[in-house]
Amino acid sequence: MIEYRTLRVALLGAGSVGSQVAKQLLEHGDELASRAGTRIELVGIAVRDVDARRDVDLPRHLFTTDAQTLILGADVVIELIGGIEPARSYLLQAINSGADVVTANKALLATHGPELFAAAEQVGAQLYYEAAVGGAIPIIRPLRDSLAGDRVNRILGIVNGTTNYILDRMDTEGDDLESALAAATALGYAEADPTADIGGYDAAQKAAILASLAFHTSVPHDAVYREGIEGITKEQIDSARKAGYVVKLLAICERILDPATGRDGVSARVYPALVSRKHPLAAVHGANNAVFVQAENAGDLMFYGAGAGGPQTASAVLGDLVSAARRHVVGGPGVAESTHADIPVLDIGSVLTRYQVSLEVADEPGVLARIAGVFSDHGVSVEVVEQSTPRSLGGEATPVRESPARGATLVIGTHEAPEAALAATVAALAANEVVTSVASVLRVEGA
Amino acid sequence: MIEYRTLRVALLGAGSVGSQVAKQLLEHGDELASRAGTRIELVGIAVRDVDARRDVDLPRHLFTTDAQTLILGADVVIELIGGIEPARSYLLQAINSGADVVTANKALLATHGPELFAAAEQVGAQLYYEAAVGGAIPIIRPLRDSLAGDRVNRILGIVNGTTNYILDRMDTEGDDLESALAAATALGYAEADPTADIGGYDAAQKAAILASLAFHTSVPHDAVYREGIEGITKEQIDSARKAGYVVKLLAICERILDPATGRDGVSARVYPALVSRKHPLAAVHGANNAVFVQAENAGDLMFYGAGAGGPQTASAVLGDLVSAARRHVVGGPGVAESTHADIPVLDIGSVLTRYQVSLEVADEPGVLARIAGVFSDHGVSVEVVEQSTPRSLGGEATPVRESPARGATLVIGTHEAPEAALAATVAALAANEVVTSVASVLRVEGA
Repeated sequence: MIEYRTLRVALLGAGSVGSQVAKQLLEHGDELASRAGTRIELVGIAVRDVDARRDVDLPRHLFTTDAQTLILGADVVIELIGGIEPARSYLLQAINSGADVVTANKALLATHGPELFAAAEQVGAQLYYEAAVGGAIPIIRPLRDSLAGDRVNRILGIVNGTTNYILDRMDTEGDDLESALAAATALGYAEADPTADIGGYDAAQKAAILASLAFHTSVPHDAVYREGIEGITKEQIDSARKAGYVVKLLAICERILDPATGRDGVSARVYPALVSRKHPLAAVHGANNAVFVQAENAGDLMFYGAGAGGPQTASAVLGDLVSAARRHVVGGPGVAESTHADIPVLDIGSVLTRYQVSLEVADEPGVLARIAGVFSDHGVSVEVVEQSTPRSLGGEATPVRESPARGATLVIGTHEAPEAALAATVAALAANEVVTSVASVLRVEGA
Repeated sequence: MIEYRTLRVALLGAGSVGSQVAKQLLEHGDELASRAGTRIELVGIAVRDVDARRDVDLPRHLFTTDAQTLILGADVVIELIGGIEPARSYLLQAINSGADVVTANKALLATHGPELFAAAEQVGAQLYYEAAVGGAIPIIRPLRDSLAGDRVNRILGIVNGTTNYILDRMDTEGDDLESALAAATALGYAEADPTADIGGYDAAQKAAILASLAFHTSVPHDAVYREGIEGITKEQIDSARKAGYVVKLLAICERILDPATGRDGVSARVYPALVSRKHPLAAVHGANNAVFVQAENAGDLMFYGAGAGGPQTASAVLGDLVSAARRHVVGGPGVAESTHADIPVLDIGSVLTRYQVSLEVADEPGVLARIAGVFSDHGVSVEVVEQSTPRSLGGEATPVRESPARGATLVIGTHEAPEAALAATVAALAANEVVTSVASVLRVEGA
């Protein structure tokens, strides 16, 4: 009989993830313990209200409202409160008392990651956060460890299940944004206030975490360029389908050339983009997540699975707990977060992208020439132009004629160009008298 | 300026992977060092013939034929020789001298894994083998660490790029096996003697490694049931397509009920199987690999990427090297391989599967009733029967009539049943006088 040391685990928070973690620990603690080589004891669960209703029935004696005392007696602290405070203070307290910490708190990592990593490094503690991005999908360890000997060039991530559900439903069911959102809310995918998801804020936090990891540098979440899906219309989804694309909200982390220095820079950005239906990301349906990684030697990799949910996120948290327990057996300081590369984070204007622009244009001779002139004036090269009349929208695009018919719609796809030039082109188009309106502007990614 | 300790790395083998590892280490050693927090020095490369031609130009002074002396002076030994001996002796020597070891040697792990893990545990060394399965795809760490707090129930893996290329080509180009194999050979995907790939031996070794990891138990490679793709015909691929399936060579690792004890057992098996075209694995084309994992809490996960190739495999090896280097900084013993669960490995006969059987049957009244009788005699429930005449093969299946037309083909899909009962059914069908021949037997997986 092996004599195990005991790992004392404190849990902060008993929401949908926390209560699942507690349940699994109480039911399968022995199994986890034998995998880790140490006994694992859940010493307590700190909550605001001991009497609140929980998803799972848990022993009442484990609950406490005194998080700080609970943390003091723990070898590992699992933080599942969410938000910035008091989560940040509790984690710093835990780290400073020498405990390893496990968290699923993307908002906290995206805003105070460097502070937490520095505190952990100082005392030799380890911070685990596999659950912070992509729910149960292992993506943190692969980037941090498996790809540590490679050079990641680009990440395209579907990292927000709510928006993927909505966009997928608009594509497959023909819903408009409003009714797709209502369906997501009814299924519990969207929260009462869906701004964090719809506005791309959640995805931007995850982009900051992924970019920091992938490029071994520190990318604050407010350096992530962000657009949400609020403006996405049924018409855009339909046109995309006809052109062989699907619209996905992407978190993009890219190693690009800094035009100012000619050296490596990092771009992290979130926006809805057109993705070819042949791209592996196009097959990610419903509320699923996937992270597509392009590395110098490894080539194209993809990690796919459920991006949220209590049991799913608990799986990632418990995997981190077993890692912490194994480390506890071995002893010694934790591995410091690798941010040595210190690559500058560049503005969206420096990024090279491709635009697809739909314009409603006046019925005048020479319109196409004038539109084309606006693109060339900004140094943007046009790849393809298609014309369709309003009535044919939803039908086949018709070939371009020099003089568009009354109230025609032009769909213009560009070659790759600097984002700043593309944005300036669109502004100039909007101001041009032959343009009735700019109906849609979407970037094309993943080509 | 941080003062780093130096990690002395010995490389055994300079083939397509080894020479890439050496090249990357020499060119990007500083980058890897800063990620690891230690200086990394390639102290030598052991080869059989110093003067042999290499894929990559490497400094001649690094080469030696004296592997044993090289190993003695190393902190980390990277074994990329392949095969059982002398790889096994070298790795044991390295481990016993206290070095951590990195290997891509699936054959060695599948046959002598327990011996190597025990040796490593005894001295507190660590054995890394991310490159042994799925090339650059991170799958070892996700199973070993990320999912350590969950319960894996099933793995369906496309883990052999050569056979996936061949089957994909038969499906998309209409090639027969022979010409698809010739194409694979011409592209360098298949070796001169393709037996290890085509016969499923390579996949079986990987299945043993994945099953051992996923179920925390020891699964020897000779306990893996194995069928290759030698018998797969163009006709089978075509019929599969028409029925909404694609044929994939799958490595299947499954937690099943041991019928003898009513407790958990493990099945590891490799065979070509019908996979629904809607399954994520169906979209894995060319020589790519993918591992589909079903876990209790995490749900469905998939890991996708290039399964082979020098730079790709080198990426995984170098990721392991950075992990070893980080561990070297921290010190302390390695984490022992978790095989505590000690679940029995069950025979293929205990597995529940679904069969799709194509029979050529005689032109007699009452044939269908007699065929159906054979299934029911063996306790196998039939889900669907379709009849097609030989001429309509390649066309639409026609509805079943009680008396099949002259030389008709019956395609029978079963419900899930024990493999032993299904195999006995097929044997009885083959011996039945109304059956002219059993044209095809394929299992259906991933439903």
